[in-house]
Amino acid sequence: MKTVLLDVPTGDRPRVRDLTSEAERFLQDAGAENGLLHVFVPHATAGVAVLETGAGSDEDLLAALDALLPKNGPDGAGWRHRHGSPGHGRDHVLPAFVPPFAVLPVVDGRLALGTWQSVCLVDTNVDNPRRQVRLSFLASA
Amino acid sequence: MKTVLLDVPTGDRPRVRDLTSEAERFLQDAGAENGLLHVFVPHATAGVAVLETGAGSDEDLLAALDALLPKNGPDGAGWRHRHGSPGHGRDHVLPAFVPPFAVLPVVDGRLALGTWQSVCLVDTNVDNPRRQVRLSFLASA
Amino acid sequence: MKTVLLDVPTGDRPRVRDLTSEAERFLQDAGAENGLLHVFVPHATAGVAVLETGAGSDEDLLAALDALLPKNGPDGAGWRHRHGSPGHGRDHVLPAFVPPFAVLPVVDGRLALGTWQSVCLVDTNVDNPRRQVRLSFLASA
Repeated sequence: MKTVLLDVPTGDRPRVRDLTSEAERFLQDAGAENGLLHVFVPHATAGVAVLETGAGSDEDLLAALDALLPKNGPDGAGWRHRHGSPGHGRDHVLPAFVPPFAVLPVVDGRLALGTWQSVCLVDTNVDNPRRQVRLSFLASA
Repeated sequence: MKTVLLDVPTGDRPRVRDLTSEAERFLQDAGAENGLLHVFVPHATAGVAVLETGAGSDEDLLAALDALLPKNGPDGAGWRHRHGSPGHGRDHVLPAFVPPFAVLPVVDGRLALGTWQSVCLVDTNVDNPRRQVRLSFLASA
Repeated sequence: MKTVLLDVPTGDRPRVRDLTSEAERFLQDAGAENGLLHVFVPHATAGVAVLETGAGSDEDLLAALDALLPKNGPDGAGWRHRHGSPGHGRDHVLPAFVPPFAVLPVVDGRLALGTWQSVCLVDTNVDNPRRQVRLSFLASA
Protein backbone atom coordinates (compact mmCIF):
# COMPACT_ATOMS: atom_id res chain seq x y z
CA MET A 1 0.00 0.00 0.00
CA LYS A 2 1.32 3.43 -0.93
CA THR A 3 0.86 5.77 2.02
CA VAL A 4 2.12 9.21 3.07
CA LEU A 5 1.66 11.38 6.14
CA LEU A 6 1.23 15.08 5.35
CA ASP A 7 1.64 18.09 7.62
CA VAL A 8 -1.25 20.50 7.13
CA PRO A 9 -1.27 23.98 8.69
CA THR A 10 -4.80 24.82 9.90
CA GLY A 11 -4.27 27.99 11.95
CA ASP A 12 -6.08 29.00 15.13
CA ARG A 13 -9.62 29.30 13.79
CA PRO A 14 -12.18 26.62 12.81
CA ARG A 15 -11.30 25.60 9.30
CA VAL A 16 -12.44 23.63 6.27
CA ARG A 17 -9.20 22.94 4.37
CA ASP A 18 -9.38 21.57 0.81
CA LEU A 19 -7.04 18.59 0.37
CA THR A 20 -7.96 17.68 -3.22
CA SER A 21 -4.80 18.94 -4.89
CA GLU A 22 -2.59 17.16 -2.33
CA ALA A 23 -4.60 13.97 -2.94
CA GLU A 24 -4.23 14.23 -6.72
CA ARG A 25 -0.48 14.84 -6.44
CA PHE A 26 -0.14 11.81 -4.13
CA LEU A 27 -1.97 9.56 -6.60
CA GLN A 28 0.26 10.77 -9.42
CA ASP A 29 3.46 10.25 -7.41
CA ALA A 30 2.23 6.79 -6.37
CA GLY A 31 1.56 5.80 -9.98
CA ALA A 32 -1.97 4.88 -8.90
CA GLU A 33 -4.23 3.39 -11.57
CA ASN A 34 -7.44 1.77 -10.26
CA GLY A 35 -8.40 1.36 -6.65
CA LEU A 36 -9.47 3.38 -3.62
CA LEU A 37 -7.97 6.49 -2.04
CA HIS A 38 -8.20 6.56 1.74
CA VAL A 39 -7.95 9.96 3.43
CA PHE A 40 -7.47 9.81 7.18
CA VAL A 41 -6.86 12.37 9.91
CA PRO A 42 -5.16 10.78 12.97
CA HIS A 43 -6.66 13.26 15.43
CA ALA A 44 -9.63 12.92 17.81
CA THR A 45 -10.96 16.43 17.11
CA ALA A 46 -11.15 16.67 13.32
CA GLY A 47 -13.05 15.09 10.44
CA VAL A 48 -12.90 14.60 6.68
CA ALA A 49 -15.79 15.77 4.49
CA VAL A 50 -16.49 15.75 0.78
CA LEU A 51 -18.15 19.00 -0.26
CA GLU A 52 -18.05 21.97 -2.62
CA THR A 53 -15.58 24.62 -1.54
CA GLY A 54 -15.34 28.30 -2.42
CA ALA A 55 -19.07 28.98 -2.80
CA GLY A 56 -20.04 29.45 0.84
CA SER A 57 -20.66 25.83 1.82
CA ASP A 58 -17.44 25.58 3.80
CA GLU A 59 -18.58 28.47 6.05
CA ASP A 60 -22.11 26.98 6.08
CA LEU A 61 -20.69 23.72 7.42
CA LEU A 62 -18.89 25.50 10.27
CA ALA A 63 -22.11 27.41 11.09
CA ALA A 64 -24.11 24.17 11.05
CA LEU A 65 -21.58 22.55 13.40
CA ASP A 66 -21.88 25.55 15.76
CA ALA A 67 -25.66 25.08 15.79
CA LEU A 68 -25.69 21.28 16.09
CA LEU A 69 -22.78 20.91 18.53
CA PRO A 70 -22.89 24.19 20.49
CA LYS A 71 -19.89 25.24 22.59
CA ASN A 72 -22.01 25.28 25.75
CA GLY A 73 -23.05 21.66 25.38
CA PRO A 74 -26.00 19.74 23.94
CA ASP A 75 -28.37 21.11 26.59
CA GLY A 76 -26.55 24.34 27.51
CA ALA A 77 -24.96 22.79 30.60
CA GLY A 78 -21.55 22.18 29.00
CA TRP A 79 -19.73 19.09 27.80
CA ARG A 80 -18.32 16.46 30.14
CA HIS A 81 -14.98 16.61 28.38
CA ARG A 82 -13.53 19.87 29.76
CA HIS A 83 -9.84 19.97 28.70
CA GLY A 84 -8.51 22.71 26.37
CA SER A 85 -10.23 25.92 25.21
CA PRO A 86 -13.83 26.67 26.29
CA GLY A 87 -16.20 24.58 24.20
CA HIS A 88 -13.46 22.17 23.15
CA GLY A 89 -15.62 19.27 24.33
CA ARG A 90 -17.70 19.58 21.22
CA ASP A 91 -14.61 19.13 19.01
CA HIS A 92 -14.32 15.64 20.49
CA VAL A 93 -17.88 14.74 19.47
CA LEU A 94 -17.45 16.04 15.90
CA PRO A 95 -15.69 12.90 14.54
CA ALA A 96 -18.76 10.76 15.32
CA PHE A 97 -20.75 12.92 12.86
CA VAL A 98 -17.98 13.99 10.45
CA PRO A 99 -15.82 10.85 10.41
CA PRO A 100 -12.02 11.19 10.31
CA PHE A 101 -11.79 9.29 7.03
CA ALA A 102 -13.08 9.30 3.48
CA VAL A 103 -12.78 6.59 0.84
CA LEU A 104 -12.88 7.71 -2.79
CA PRO A 105 -12.67 5.90 -6.14
CA VAL A 106 -9.60 6.17 -8.36
CA VAL A 107 -10.27 5.26 -11.99
CA ASP A 108 -7.55 5.24 -14.68
CA GLY A 109 -5.22 7.17 -12.40
CA ARG A 110 -7.72 9.96 -11.66
CA LEU A 111 -9.67 10.73 -8.51
CA ALA A 112 -13.22 10.10 -9.77
CA LEU A 113 -14.94 12.96 -7.93
CA GLY A 114 -17.98 14.84 -9.18
CA THR A 115 -17.48 18.30 -10.70
CA TRP A 116 -18.26 20.15 -7.47
CA GLN A 117 -16.75 17.75 -4.96
CA SER A 118 -13.59 18.41 -2.96
CA VAL A 119 -12.16 16.34 -0.13
CA CYS A 120 -11.59 18.50 2.93
CA LEU A 121 -10.18 18.45 6.41
CA VAL A 122 -12.75 19.82 8.90
CA ASP A 123 -11.00 21.17 11.96
CA THR A 124 -12.96 23.09 14.59
CA ASN A 125 -10.18 22.70 17.15
CA VAL A 126 -8.45 26.08 17.67
CA ASP A 127 -5.75 24.64 19.96
CA ASN A 128 -3.82 22.75 17.22
CA PRO A 129 -2.47 25.00 14.44
CA ARG A 130 -0.96 22.01 12.60
CA ARG A 131 -2.56 18.69 11.68
CA GLN A 132 -1.46 15.47 10.07
CA VAL A 133 -3.35 13.79 7.24
CA ARG A 134 -2.59 10.27 5.99
CA LEU A 135 -3.25 9.47 2.34
CA SER A 136 -3.22 5.81 1.26
CA PHE A 137 -3.90 4.13 -2.05
CA LEU A 138 -5.21 0.59 -2.17
CA ALA A 139 -5.02 -1.15 -5.52
CA SER A 140 -7.36 -4.00 -6.34
CA ALA A 141 -6.01 -7.53 -6.59
CA MET B 1 -11.00 -2.96 -9.82
CA LYS B 2 -14.45 -3.67 -11.19
CA THR B 3 -16.43 -0.43 -11.35
CA VAL B 4 -19.66 0.80 -12.96
CA LEU B 5 -21.43 4.13 -13.11
CA LEU B 6 -25.23 3.86 -12.78
CA ASP B 7 -27.91 6.37 -13.73
CA VAL B 8 -30.48 6.64 -10.95
CA PRO B 9 -33.73 8.59 -11.38
CA THR B 10 -34.55 10.44 -8.14
CA GLY B 11 -37.40 12.75 -9.19
CA ASP B 12 -38.08 16.26 -7.95
CA ARG B 13 -38.71 15.56 -4.27
CA PRO B 14 -36.27 14.70 -1.44
CA ARG B 15 -35.67 11.01 -1.69
CA VAL B 16 -34.14 7.98 0.03
CA ARG B 17 -33.55 5.53 -2.83
CA ASP B 18 -32.67 1.90 -2.00
CA LEU B 19 -29.66 0.74 -4.07
CA THR B 20 -29.25 -2.74 -2.55
CA SER B 21 -30.58 -4.74 -5.48
CA GLU B 22 -28.39 -2.80 -7.95
CA ALA B 23 -25.40 -3.44 -5.69
CA GLU B 24 -26.12 -7.18 -5.48
CA ARG B 25 -26.53 -7.43 -9.24
CA PHE B 26 -23.23 -5.59 -9.77
CA LEU B 27 -21.38 -7.97 -7.44
CA GLN B 28 -22.86 -10.97 -9.28
CA ASP B 29 -21.94 -9.56 -12.72
CA ALA B 30 -18.44 -8.75 -11.45
CA GLY B 31 -17.94 -12.29 -10.16
CA ALA B 32 -17.04 -10.77 -6.80
CA GLU B 33 -15.99 -13.19 -4.06
CA ASN B 34 -14.33 -11.59 -1.01
CA GLY B 35 -13.52 -7.92 -0.59
CA LEU B 36 -15.19 -4.55 -0.15
CA LEU B 37 -18.00 -2.90 -2.06
CA HIS B 38 -17.61 0.85 -2.42
CA VAL B 39 -20.76 2.87 -3.13
CA PHE B 40 -20.11 6.44 -4.19
CA VAL B 41 -22.30 9.31 -5.37
CA PRO B 42 -20.27 11.85 -7.43
CA HIS B 43 -22.47 14.80 -6.48
CA ALA B 44 -21.95 17.58 -3.93
CA THR B 45 -25.57 17.52 -2.70
CA ALA B 46 -26.29 13.86 -1.92
CA GLY B 47 -25.18 11.18 0.48
CA VAL B 48 -25.15 7.42 0.95
CA ALA B 49 -26.70 5.88 4.07
CA VAL B 50 -27.18 2.35 5.35
CA LEU B 51 -30.59 1.98 6.96
CA GLU B 52 -33.82 0.00 7.06
CA THR B 53 -36.22 0.98 4.30
CA GLY B 54 -39.96 0.51 3.99
CA ALA B 55 -40.84 0.83 7.69
CA GLY B 56 -40.89 4.61 8.04
CA SER B 57 -37.20 5.25 8.71
CA ASP B 58 -36.57 6.63 5.23
CA GLU B 59 -39.20 9.36 5.84
CA ASP B 60 -37.86 9.78 9.39
CA LEU B 61 -34.40 10.48 7.98
CA LEU B 62 -35.75 13.18 5.65
CA ALA B 63 -37.66 14.74 8.57
CA ALA B 64 -34.52 14.64 10.75
CA LEU B 65 -32.53 16.35 7.98
CA ASP B 66 -35.22 19.06 7.73
CA ALA B 67 -34.91 19.65 11.48
CA LEU B 68 -31.10 19.51 11.68
CA LEU B 69 -30.30 21.37 8.44
CA PRO B 70 -33.31 23.70 8.05
CA LYS B 71 -33.96 25.40 4.71
CA ASN B 72 -33.69 28.86 6.30
CA GLY B 73 -30.19 28.23 7.61
CA PRO B 74 -28.59 27.08 10.85
CA ASP B 75 -29.69 30.23 12.70
CA GLY B 76 -32.71 31.20 10.58
CA ALA B 77 -30.71 33.78 8.60
CA GLY B 78 -30.19 31.59 5.53
CA TRP B 79 -27.21 29.75 4.09
CA ARG B 80 -24.26 31.50 2.49
CA HIS B 81 -24.47 29.26 -0.53
CA ARG B 82 -27.47 30.76 -2.38
CA HIS B 83 -27.55 29.12 -5.83
CA GLY B 84 -30.50 26.94 -6.92
CA SER B 85 -33.91 26.48 -5.27
CA PRO B 86 -34.67 28.21 -1.94
CA GLY B 87 -32.95 26.30 0.86
CA HIS B 88 -30.59 24.54 -1.54
CA GLY B 89 -27.64 25.71 0.58
CA ARG B 90 -28.43 23.03 3.10
CA ASP B 91 -28.15 20.30 0.44
CA HIS B 92 -24.49 21.30 0.12
CA VAL B 93 -23.87 20.76 3.84
CA LEU B 94 -25.59 17.36 3.91
CA PRO B 95 -22.58 15.36 2.58
CA ALA B 96 -20.49 16.38 5.60
CA PHE B 97 -23.01 14.55 7.82
CA VAL B 98 -24.28 11.87 5.41
CA PRO B 99 -21.08 11.11 3.48
CA PRO B 100 -21.26 10.43 -0.28
CA PHE B 101 -19.80 6.96 0.12
CA ALA B 102 -20.32 3.68 1.95
CA VAL B 103 -17.94 0.74 2.22
CA LEU B 104 -19.50 -2.68 2.82
CA PRO B 105 -18.13 -6.20 3.25
CA VAL B 106 -18.56 -8.85 0.57
CA VAL B 107 -18.13 -12.40 1.84
CA ASP B 108 -18.33 -15.47 -0.41
CA GLY B 109 -19.86 -13.39 -3.17
CA ARG B 110 -22.63 -11.94 -0.99
CA LEU B 111 -23.09 -8.44 0.37
CA ALA B 112 -22.76 -9.18 4.11
CA LEU B 113 -25.44 -6.76 5.35
CA GLY B 114 -27.58 -7.27 8.44
CA THR B 115 -31.16 -8.42 7.98
CA TRP B 116 -32.63 -4.92 8.14
CA GLN B 117 -29.88 -3.00 6.39
CA SER B 118 -30.16 -1.48 2.92
CA VAL B 119 -27.69 0.82 1.19
CA CYS B 120 -29.44 3.98 0.02
CA LEU B 121 -28.89 7.16 -1.92
CA VAL B 122 -30.04 10.17 0.15
CA ASP B 123 -30.93 13.05 -2.14
CA THR B 124 -32.57 16.17 -0.74
CA ASN B 125 -31.75 18.19 -3.87
CA VAL B 126 -34.95 18.78 -5.85
CA ASP B 127 -33.14 20.43 -8.79
CA ASN B 128 -31.53 17.22 -10.15
CA PRO B 129 -34.05 14.53 -11.15
CA ARG B 130 -31.28 12.14 -12.18
CA ARG B 131 -28.16 11.11 -10.27
CA GLN B 132 -25.13 8.98 -10.89
CA VAL B 133 -23.90 6.30 -8.50
CA ARG B 134 -20.54 4.54 -8.85
CA LEU B 135 -20.24 0.98 -7.56
CA SER B 136 -16.74 -0.50 -7.22
CA PHE B 137 -15.51 -3.84 -5.93
CA LEU B 138 -12.08 -4.14 -4.40
CA ALA B 139 -10.75 -7.66 -3.96
CA SER B 140 -8.11 -8.41 -1.37
CA ALA B 141 -4.58 -9.29 -2.48
CA MET C 1 -9.73 -11.11 2.70
CA LYS C 2 -9.34 -11.98 6.37
CA THR C 3 -12.65 -11.44 8.15
CA VAL C 4 -14.19 -12.34 11.51
CA LEU C 5 -17.58 -11.80 13.09
CA LEU C 6 -17.43 -10.90 16.80
CA ASP C 7 -20.14 -11.08 19.44
CA VAL C 8 -20.16 -7.92 21.52
CA PRO C 9 -22.28 -7.58 24.67
CA THR C 10 -23.75 -4.05 24.87
CA GLY C 11 -26.27 -4.33 27.70
CA ASP C 12 -29.63 -2.61 27.96
CA ARG C 13 -28.50 1.02 28.04
CA PRO C 14 -27.19 3.30 25.26
CA ARG C 15 -23.54 2.52 24.91
CA VAL C 16 -20.27 3.59 23.33
CA ARG C 17 -18.16 0.42 23.34
CA ASP C 18 -14.43 0.66 22.54
CA LEU C 19 -13.41 -2.01 19.98
CA THR C 20 -9.76 -0.98 19.54
CA SER C 21 -8.19 -3.87 21.42
CA GLU C 22 -10.34 -6.42 19.54
CA ALA C 23 -9.30 -4.77 16.27
CA GLU C 24 -5.60 -4.88 17.17
CA ARG C 25 -5.84 -8.54 18.18
CA PHE C 26 -7.61 -9.38 14.91
CA LEU C 27 -4.88 -7.68 12.86
CA GLN C 28 -2.21 -9.59 14.76
CA ASP C 29 -3.99 -12.93 14.34
CA ALA C 30 -4.49 -12.18 10.62
CA GLY C 31 -0.79 -11.40 10.15
CA ALA C 32 -1.85 -8.06 8.65
CA GLU C 33 0.95 -5.84 7.33
CA ASN C 34 -0.19 -2.93 5.12
CA GLY C 35 -3.75 -2.24 4.04
CA LEU C 36 -7.10 -1.14 5.41
CA LEU C 37 -9.10 -2.36 8.39
CA HIS C 38 -12.85 -2.34 7.83
CA VAL C 39 -15.06 -2.29 10.93
CA PHE C 40 -18.72 -3.01 10.24
CA VAL C 41 -21.80 -3.47 12.40
CA PRO C 42 -24.48 -5.53 10.59
CA HIS C 43 -27.38 -3.90 12.43
CA ALA C 44 -29.79 -1.14 11.36
CA THR C 45 -29.72 0.64 14.74
CA ALA C 46 -26.04 1.09 15.54
CA GLY C 47 -23.02 2.96 14.22
CA VAL C 48 -19.23 2.97 14.35
CA ALA C 49 -17.38 6.10 15.49
CA VAL C 50 -13.74 7.01 15.97
CA LEU C 51 -13.31 9.10 19.09
CA GLU C 52 -11.46 9.50 22.38
CA THR C 53 -12.87 7.29 25.12
CA GLY C 54 -12.60 7.54 28.89
CA ALA C 55 -12.47 11.35 29.16
CA GLY C 56 -16.19 12.15 28.92
CA SER C 57 -16.58 12.28 25.15
CA ASP C 58 -18.36 8.94 24.99
CA GLU C 59 -21.09 10.28 27.32
CA ASP C 60 -21.02 13.59 25.41
CA LEU C 61 -21.76 11.72 22.19
CA LEU C 62 -24.77 9.97 23.72
CA ALA C 63 -26.04 13.33 25.05
CA ALA C 64 -25.53 14.94 21.62
CA LEU C 65 -27.50 12.10 20.00
CA ASP C 66 -30.32 12.61 22.52
CA ALA C 67 -30.42 16.31 21.59
CA LEU C 68 -30.10 15.86 17.81
CA LEU C 69 -32.33 12.78 17.43
CA PRO C 70 -34.81 13.16 20.31
CA LYS C 71 -36.92 10.21 21.39
CA ASN C 72 -40.12 12.12 20.66
CA GLY C 73 -39.21 12.75 17.05
CA PRO C 74 -37.60 15.52 15.01
CA ASP C 75 -40.53 17.89 15.64
CA GLY C 76 -41.89 16.41 18.89
CA ALA C 77 -44.62 14.45 17.08
CA GLY C 78 -42.81 11.12 17.18
CA TRP C 79 -41.04 9.00 14.58
CA ARG C 80 -42.88 7.17 11.81
CA HIS C 81 -41.03 3.96 12.63
CA ARG C 82 -42.89 2.80 15.77
CA HIS C 83 -41.69 -0.77 16.50
CA GLY C 84 -39.78 -1.60 19.71
CA SER C 85 -39.26 0.52 22.84
CA PRO C 86 -40.58 4.11 22.96
CA GLY C 87 -38.28 6.35 20.95
CA HIS C 88 -36.74 3.41 19.09
CA GLY C 89 -37.51 5.15 15.79
CA ARG C 90 -34.57 7.44 16.34
CA ASP C 91 -32.20 4.46 16.64
CA HIS C 92 -33.08 3.67 13.02
CA VAL C 93 -32.06 7.15 11.85
CA LEU C 94 -28.74 7.10 13.73
CA PRO C 95 -26.80 5.06 11.09
CA ALA C 96 -27.35 7.81 8.49
CA PHE C 97 -25.37 10.18 10.74
CA VAL C 98 -23.06 7.72 12.52
CA PRO C 99 -22.41 5.22 9.73
CA PRO C 100 -22.23 1.48 10.54
CA PHE C 101 -18.66 1.23 9.23
CA ALA C 102 -15.22 2.72 9.64
CA VAL C 103 -12.16 2.25 7.44
CA LEU C 104 -8.77 2.70 9.08
CA PRO C 105 -5.16 2.48 7.87
CA VAL C 106 -2.89 -0.40 8.87
CA VAL C 107 0.81 0.38 8.47
CA ASP C 108 3.57 -2.16 9.21
CA GLY C 109 1.11 -4.37 11.05
CA ARG C 110 -0.18 -1.62 13.33
CA LEU C 111 -3.50 0.21 13.35
CA ALA C 112 -2.29 3.74 12.49
CA LEU C 113 -4.63 5.67 14.79
CA GLY C 114 -3.82 8.98 16.44
CA THR C 115 -2.88 8.98 20.13
CA TRP C 116 -6.38 9.78 21.34
CA GLN C 117 -8.42 7.84 18.78
CA SER C 118 -10.37 4.67 19.51
CA VAL C 119 -12.76 2.84 17.21
CA CYS C 120 -16.12 2.36 18.93
CA LEU C 121 -19.48 0.74 18.51
CA VAL C 122 -22.25 3.29 19.13
CA ASP C 123 -25.43 1.54 20.19
CA THR C 124 -28.42 3.54 21.41
CA ASN C 125 -30.77 0.60 20.97
CA VAL C 126 -31.75 -0.76 24.39
CA ASP C 127 -33.66 -3.74 22.97
CA ASN C 128 -30.60 -5.72 21.80
CA PRO C 129 -28.17 -6.60 24.61
CA ARG C 130 -25.80 -8.35 22.15
CA ARG C 131 -24.41 -7.09 18.86
CA GLN C 132 -22.25 -8.46 16.09
CA VAL C 133 -19.27 -6.63 14.66
CA ARG C 134 -17.42 -7.73 11.50
CA LEU C 135 -13.72 -6.93 11.22
CA SER C 136 -12.06 -7.34 7.81
CA PHE C 137 -8.54 -6.66 6.60
CA LEU C 138 -7.92 -5.76 2.99
CA ALA C 139 -4.31 -5.96 1.80
CA SER C 140 -3.16 -3.93 -1.16
CA ALA C 141 -2.27 -5.68 -4.43
